[in-house]
This record gives sequence, structure tokens and C-alpha cells, in this order.
Amino acid sequence: MSDVDEVDETHDPARRSFVESANDPDTEFPIQNLPLGIFSTSRDPVPRIGVAIGDQIFDLKRARSLELLPSSLPSFVFEQTTLNALFGQGRSTLRRLRRCVADLLDRETSADITKRRAADLFAPIDQCTMYRPTDVGNYTDFYAGIYHARAAGALLTPENPLPQNYKWIPIAYHGRASSVQVGRGAIKRPLGQRPPSEPGRAPEFGPCERLDFELEMGFYHSGGNGIGHPIPIGEAGREILGFSLLNDWSARDIQRWEMFPLGPFLSKSFATFVSPWVVTSDALIPFRVAAMERPDGDPRPLGYLLDEADQAAGGIDVDLEVYLSTEQMRSGAAPAVRILTSNARYLYWTPAQMIAHHTVNGCNLEAGDLIGTGTISGPSPQELSSMLELTAAGAKPVGLPNCERRSFLQDGDEITFKGRCSRGGFASVGFGSCTGRISGAAPIVTKEAV
Amino acid sequence: MSDVDEVDETHDPARRSFVESANDPDTEFPIQNLPLGIFSTSRDPVPRIGVAIGDQIFDLKRARSLELLPSSLPSFVFEQTTLNALFGQGRSTLRRLRRCVADLLDRETSADITKRRAADLFAPIDQCTMYRPTDVGNYTDFYAGIYHARAAGALLTPENPLPQNYKWIPIAYHGRASSVQVGRGAIKRPLGQRPPSEPGRAPEFGPCERLDFELEMGFYHSGGNGIGHPIPIGEAGREILGFSLLNDWSARDIQRWEMFPLGPFLSKSFATFVSPWVVTSDALIPFRVAAMERPDGDPRPLGYLLDEADQAAGGIDVDLEVYLSTEQMRSGAAPAVRILTSNARYLYWTPAQMIAHHTVNGCNLEAGDLIGTGTISGPSPQELSSMLELTAAGAKPVGLPNCERRSFLQDGDEITFKGRCSRGGFASVGFGSCTGRISGAAPIVTKEAV
Repeated sequence: MSDVDEVDETHDPARRSFVESANDPDTEFPIQNLPLGIFSTSRDPVPRIGVAIGDQIFDLKRARSLELLPSSLPSFVFEQTTLNALFGQGRSTLRRLRRCVADLLDRETSADITKRRAADLFAPIDQCTMYRPTDVGNYTDFYAGIYHARAAGALLTPENPLPQNYKWIPIAYHGRASSVQVGRGAIKRPLGQRPPSEPGRAPEFGPCERLDFELEMGFYHSGGNGIGHPIPIGEAGREILGFSLLNDWSARDIQRWEMFPLGPFLSKSFATFVSPWVVTSDALIPFRVAAMERPDGDPRPLGYLLDEADQAAGGIDVDLEVYLSTEQMRSGAAPAVRILTSNARYLYWTPAQMIAHHTVNGCNLEAGDLIGTGTISGPSPQELSSMLELTAAGAKPVGLPNCERRSFLQDGDEITFKGRCSRGGFASVGFGSCTGRISGAAPIVTKEAV
Repeated sequence: MSDVDEVDETHDPARRSFVESANDPDTEFPIQNLPLGIFSTSRDPVPRIGVAIGDQIFDLKRARSLELLPSSLPSFVFEQTTLNALFGQGRSTLRRLRRCVADLLDRETSADITKRRAADLFAPIDQCTMYRPTDVGNYTDFYAGIYHARAAGALLTPENPLPQNYKWIPIAYHGRASSVQVGRGAIKRPLGQRPPSEPGRAPEFGPCERLDFELEMGFYHSGGNGIGHPIPIGEAGREILGFSLLNDWSARDIQRWEMFPLGPFLSKSFATFVSPWVVTSDALIPFRVAAMERPDGDPRPLGYLLDEADQAAGGIDVDLEVYLSTEQMRSGAAPAVRILTSNARYLYWTPAQMIAHHTVNGCNLEAGDLIGTGTISGPSPQELSSMLELTAAGAKPVGLPNCERRSFLQDGDEITFKGRCSRGGFASVGFGSCTGRISGAAPIVTKEAV
């Protein structure tokens, strides 16, 4: 958290919007939230920047063309089909935009024109198409959820569940950028090599049999440090622009066989889903909390990762939920079942520490880059945030109300992530959802199959 | 190698260019080569596409504006500042371009206008600025050099030098795209965590003490398979567009401490260098060779990786060299010393197998993506393609003619890669060079240092 991260009038819980659905206490998108996303409508199929407000999207491109946004905000960013250019302007621009949009949507302060031109400026969310928020130039996935690292480690290397570097290094790996998609749609079961049935035999080849999700959060930084220029920990949090939900789809059998020595590759690169809405760091200011307390005996972070202000308020309190809906449940019109809950507080490293670590070697961040926190499991058995952990690697299948059981995901299964921040004295804000439904694998490809 | 990979008139060794330097038997860029790159001149600082010919660059943007290129080639690709759009057009477009440029530069077939406007169309290579050939959306680094895998493995895990999956899987990991740079310039020594001096102690923090290069080749594919659409092995080689030299700079001490369990991260992401020239797959047709022969007892590749045509001609015969020049050598005007040689034949997996594997899970490739082969060491002690291997992890420093010794790279050291293809009956073609000089680390960053 940076020194400019203070609650201001945009967080005032008494504010009401003239968009009535935004004043519903259950809405994820009250006027205190104002998340950014890329959308289009059937009337205008060009993707553009919008802000979610209640059950509507406020069209920033139109708002700009009607001169509702201050001319001090650069015009070209609202002509783009992604958030990259806006994110490249940095946090101060996002904050000015937030204040301006809040005033435009406020029942008291809104200009008449906003209401008069409402038909041009607003579109119902459920009639819009959503897109990937940014053109992801680089995707990095951390491993900062210590309960996940310990639970996954206990299954894979029980003698040494937590890697020896874990409490020193915010461990991460490079993910595949091209297959990052907006979390709205189908995901094809990947083909790949599965481990040999016994040592010395050939691996098996075919559709993944241990398809899984991983509950994470993603975040975006304004980038722009050049190659060779580390971002000091004292500045690292300041330019984190916003957060989303992230599903790091994982093929456990492919992963187990391929990942030594260079890490996960095809077991993750078939798809990563991000939620369409980016909840800004400014909207999240009321929900900042202290970084996870390090148990006695844990080492103090090294100097380049240590900042008292970040330790005091570098965490975020986001309640997370995962829902499963199977084909059989849907055919019986049964609602999706919540299979786990968790909270973003359960991160051993803060997002600012991740940024400081990521750049300490001089690696350059770019606007639009996506950074994943790693799977966020919690300490209790209901807070294990992947099927791998929930089912003890398949040994204890999850029972569903219709008597189906799941060790890993089957074709037709649909996974939905939800996220929400609540705190007394503030309006509750939500992250929307991130949803994917599994479809069957592609046919097996060989030379002959061409 | 695909069925259309046949020697044609562009490979005729009797062809001569009216650019006289291209007819020098020692040139890397005869008329039979015609590699693509991005350059600018002091007179026109806008980066644009050029072709190397002898000691000159032929300006394709100007050639297009003078209507020297056939109108069937799409104009917009020559207006770009990277090769991405041209690469997105695919191999057949590159082949048409090659034939046309060869005719334009040929002493016999060139149009008068090409010579008359030579001052506009050509610029001396040594007066041009070169750029990264593509905007790298995704960078994947394989581990297909089996002699490297075995040598590195023997140093790190002597009881089991080759991973058990090695002969089944073309192992790879995602690299960092943003720090891929053209191999012309300085590279700052990275800061990072180094392993604890003894188990249980804190890691050390500071400049990397085991800075290294890795000799690889990079290649480019036209991409465009959608998410969920594997590229069959029988088609996988066809759209590999060209090759370059690649230096996968590595911080061995940082790598050793960080890489378990998720693979290399900061130890590689501070810089990756590619040579400015992309030698096209078409130029390399005469130099295709059989894939590396698998020793008796090695498994047959699984069906999705097996193609007889690829086994017969999926390798490339490229002689590779690495030169080292130290500050002390340069101050004494001593030439750089060749410290090793290798050859691209020493790859256990062919580039086509890498593409088929990369996409078998449905991962989508994009035009401009960079794919590294992994370090290409050979079987002999003079063919170990990193300082790690050459010096047995520092135990046996390399002696230089001026009596300096090197375990790993020191500030001021300059590493240059060269590559060249030669075969009786064909003109020899070269890859230009890929060069980087080490500069001192950035100051250590902490909260207080801000």
C-alpha cells in the first residue's frame, strides 16, 4: 500500500447512483466499485472500455466522445480495444478517471446530459460481450499461497512439503500469455503425455484424466521500468492498478510427468481464465489488511522485499468462492454447488513483494502484463482451492448433493469463481465472476490423421 | 521438412548479385541467403524490414514504395516496424518474397531501376541500427540439446543426469518475452538471491556471481492455430519460417536457488538475446539433415511426434561458434578468442517435433513468437555450450591466451555467437552475429534506497 492510498469521497457509502440497480445492497458493482472491462454490444461490435455500474455498463468511449470526461485525460486510451494504453498511463490517471466517473454516475452530481443520453451511454451487462481486459504481453504466475504450497507439496513430496526456498523467495514461473482468455466460455480438455503406469514403461498419451482448476487472483501493474531497472519495494505497490479473479486451469497428470526439471508447461498453457472486470486498487483501498503474519521462527524478508508500510497494509481481504455445476445438475435444473471458500489474505507474499522480486534482476514489466498470485488455499479443509487438494489427489472424491462424485473435472462440468470485499462502514464490492465449462478433447493428432 | 522444401533456382550457387560484396566467398549474406531483419538508418530513423545482401541492407519498404515488389504481396506488412505481420502471412508469402528479392538483386535479372535508385534502396549494414526482429508475444525455450541436458544434469544431479522423461518429451518452459532483445549491446549483471552458504542459513543477496551464456538457436513459426487446435506433426515443420542465433543468458547461482519446484524465473528473465537476422527456412533447405539418430534402446517417439519425413530431414546442419573478448584483451587490441564450437545437429528433438508437442494440448502459437531450441552442446569437450559445462561448474576455469582465466563471466566480458551453413555444391550462408557485453549490476534496492 502506498502513502497515497487513502479513503476518499469515492468510497463514501452514502453515495447513490442514478443507475438504480447500483444501489441494491446485493450488487457487486455499486458506485463505490467502478471496475474496468472491455465490452461490445450487438449495436456496436467494436470492443471498447466500459465501467460496470449495477446491472449496466457505462461506455467510456461514448462518454469521451460526448466530452463528459475531463480533457486532461488522454483521449487515445478510450479509442483502444484493450486496457493496455490506459494502464500504461499509470495509477494517477486511473484515480482521476475514477473520481470523474463517480461524479458522472452519482445521483447528486451527475450532469443532465448523462441521463439524457443514457440510451447511448449505457448497455445492460447481460446483453454485452466481454473480452480479455488486456492484450497480455507477459503472464507471470506466483506461488504465494502458502497453504496451497504446503498442501500440494504434502501430496507430491510428503517428506518435504514446503520447498526450502519458500520463505525467502516469492516463487514464480513464466506462464503462457497467448492462451489467457476472458473467463466466459468453453475450455477444451487437453491432450498430452501422462505418467507411465509403472517406472520404466512408456508414458500414456491421450486426453488429460486429472483436469483441475486453481483459484487465484490476477493483478495488473502499469509497467514501464526499463530493462535493468529494479522497482524498489517502497514503490512496488504504488503502480499496481487493479485485481481480477484468475483460474489457472491445470492438467495434473500431464504436469506430474513433464514438470521436472523446468517446471509446468503444457499442463498449464492450454488455458488461463481471467474475470472480465478489473477492480481497481483504488476501489480496494478500504479492504487493505496487514500482510499475512509470519509465524515465529520464519525469517524476516530480505531488504529488497521489506517495507513496513507494505507489511502493515499490503494484503487484501477478498472473500473467494468456487462453484461447481455438472451437466447432470443442470439437466435437473439444480443450482451450482459451492465447493470451497477462501480469502486473498492467505498469501505469504504481498503483491508489492511480488513486483519487487520480479524486477530485482532488472526484468522489465509492461502495461497489460498479467500477474497471478498462485493458488489461494486457506488453513481449513473447506479452503483447499483446487480439486487436487480438496480430494487429496483424487483419493477422497467430493460428494455432490445429487450423489455425483468428483475427483477431478469431467466434461460438462462448469467452474465459477466469485470474489467479494465487505467491511463495516463501507459499501461491499464484488469482482463479477470467472466461469469455464469443460468440453471434450480434440481428436488425437498424428501424421496419419492429417 | 515439408514436401515443398525442395532446392530451387534461389539456391543456385552460380547466381551472382550486382551488389559485389555479396559475391565474396567469405560473405555470410550471399544472394542465396537473403535473411530478414528490422533496421533503421540515420537518414530515416523509422524501423523497417530489410534483407541483408553482402555488406548492405536492401530496404523492402522502399522497394515496395517503388513498386519493385509484386502487388500480390500484401503492402501493409512492409509498413510495419516488426516482422510479425509478414510472418503472419505464412511460409508461402515468404517464399514468394524470397524469389522476387533474389531476382531484384541478381546481376542478370535485376531491373535497371534497382541499380539507378541504389542510393535509396541500400544502406551499409555497419551504419544501420538493428532491432529485435519481432514483437515477441510469447517466448518458449526448449531443452532439446541432449548433450547439454546430460552435462548439466551430471553437475546438478550426478546420480541421475538425464531426467526420466527426457527421451519421451521435448521438455520446455515458458520464458520471459519482454526482455528478449536484439543481440547488439550491453547486458547488466542481475541482482538476486544466491543459495545459502550452508543448509539452514539465509540466502545471500547481491550481484550474480555465476553469470553465464547458453548457445541456442531460435526459430519463428507463422502461428495462427487457434486455441484448442493442435498442429499435427506432419504439418508442424511447414510453417517454421526461419532461424536465428539465441543467447539464453543465465544466472547460475540465482537459478540453483530459485528453480525448484517451478523452474527458472529471475535467473533467465533479465535478458535473452536474438541475432538481428532471421535466416529463412527456405534459405536453409540445402542444409537440412536427418534428425539426430536415436541410440539403440531409446524409445521410438510417440505417434503425435513421429513423422518419417521429419526424421529424414528435420535437422539442420549449422556450425556454431562462441567467442569471448575480455576488457583486458580489448585494451591490448587482442582479438576475441573462440572458446567453443558446436552444431545444430546435436538436437534430440527436431523443431517440427517441438511445434507438435507445444500445440498438442491446444496451446495457440502466434506470429512473432520466439522458440528457443535449448542449449546445443556436442559430444566432445570442445563442444560444451555454456560456461557451466565448459568449466565443470567453475571447477576447471577456461584459460585465455593472455593468461586470464574464466569460471563464469566478468564485467566487461563480451560474448559473440556465430553460425554458418556449408555444403558442397551450395553457397555458404551465415547468421550474422549475436553479441552482448556484461556491465556492472544496478545498485542494491531497498525501501531506504528510494
